[in-house]
Amino acid sequence: MEILKKKIQREGKVLPNKVLKVDSFLNHQMDPVLMKEIGEEFADRFKEEQIDKVLTVESSGIGPALMAALTMGIPMVFARKKKSLTLTEGLLSSKVYSYTKQESNQVTISKDFIKEGERVLIIDDFLANGQAALGLIDIVQQAGAVPSGVGIVIEKSFQEGRNRVLETGVRLESLARIQSLDDGKVRFADELMTIGGRL
Amino acid sequence: MEILKKKIQREGKVLPNKVLKVDSFLNHQMDPVLMKEIGEEFADRFKEEQIDKVLTVESSGIGPALMAALTMGIPMVFARKKKSLTLTEGLLSSKVYSYTKQESNQVTISKDFIKEGERVLIIDDFLANGQAALGLIDIVQQAGAVPSGVGIVIEKSFQEGRNRVLETGVRLESLARIQSLDDGKVRFADELMTIGGRL
Repeated sequence: MEILKKKIQREGKVLPNKVLKVDSFLNHQMDPVLMKEIGEEFADRFKEEQIDKVLTVESSGIGPALMAALTMGIPMVFARKKKSLTLTEGLLSSKVYSYTKQESNQVTISKDFIKEGERVLIIDDFLANGQAALGLIDIVQQAGAVPSGVGIVIEKSFQEGRNRVLETGVRLESLARIQSLDDGKVRFADELMTIGGRL
Repeated sequence: MEILKKKIQREGKVLPNKVLKVDSFLNHQMDPVLMKEIGEEFADRFKEEQIDKVLTVESSGIGPALMAALTMGIPMVFARKKKSLTLTEGLLSSKVYSYTKQESNQVTISKDFIKEGERVLIIDDFLANGQAALGLIDIVQQAGAVPSGVGIVIEKSFQEGRNRVLETGVRLESLARIQSLDDGKVRFADELMTIGGRL
């Protein structure tokens, strides 16, 4: 998605340990017009999948997921990273380790909102080690529903997440695929493909 | 906002301790069309205020705030409830106690995204004791910016938040004002006004 890649090139900051900071439009400040375009792109890429519901995890996934759900005309559900007092029974959980935050969270949804047989599109802001996406796929399967796709805004293609998601057999669409953050520079996977003829 | 009040009457669940659970369209599952209408309503109510930026706090505020920002054509910023490793310097923080979750959080934003002199609209899903709204007003003032309004989706008018916000002199607009959750029933403030001629 060209407009997204340009935004990453212009505003993304590469931090040590291969962290890409996109706080100016996705993870802290949000660009609503870009979020809407991202939502429309997801809706377009998964339009043949007869999706019933969009699932994400708080907090940065909510913007893209909500805009995708709006475009598709279906509800969105966001998983909680820990239990709240108003969500006490009928829960489905999966353990997710965040390398960025160096902590484990229980990612949790209510059984009320993902039903048996529903076709669920999982959306998240980043795919790195794949922990969050795999946790959400696990929850969808626990509910007896069908993980019909994973839509990622920014994929760090040099980490394990992509392969781990593909190994589950679930279709993966990433709007920007980053092949390298070496030397403080963002290099996209498809640019390398153009230059080097591989990938 | 009639469509919101109908949704609350139809789908809201009154739990013990005057907790109103609206997990089917706002706090866990989100209704994207309703979120869009809520965003448009906020944009309309604050259209004279020359707002530069919308500020909310993760997670349930993100949907309404993003839709308001989209309608107004401005960026949205969501405060974090605890510090993440990719946000390390240049922070503004305020302490917020959540009665629902019975815990204190440090609500934090980066100085980069709320600038001196900017007119900021604060949006949140619930107003109860007013802790979150006051924390966000505090942060806006720390930044040297102007808290130009507080927009709330659901106000529990029988708790202290409304008065506490009004005491700061900041304009408050709540789309649904709940006067009572007694006997497991939702009663709106303006209904009581119609019936009883007071409030």
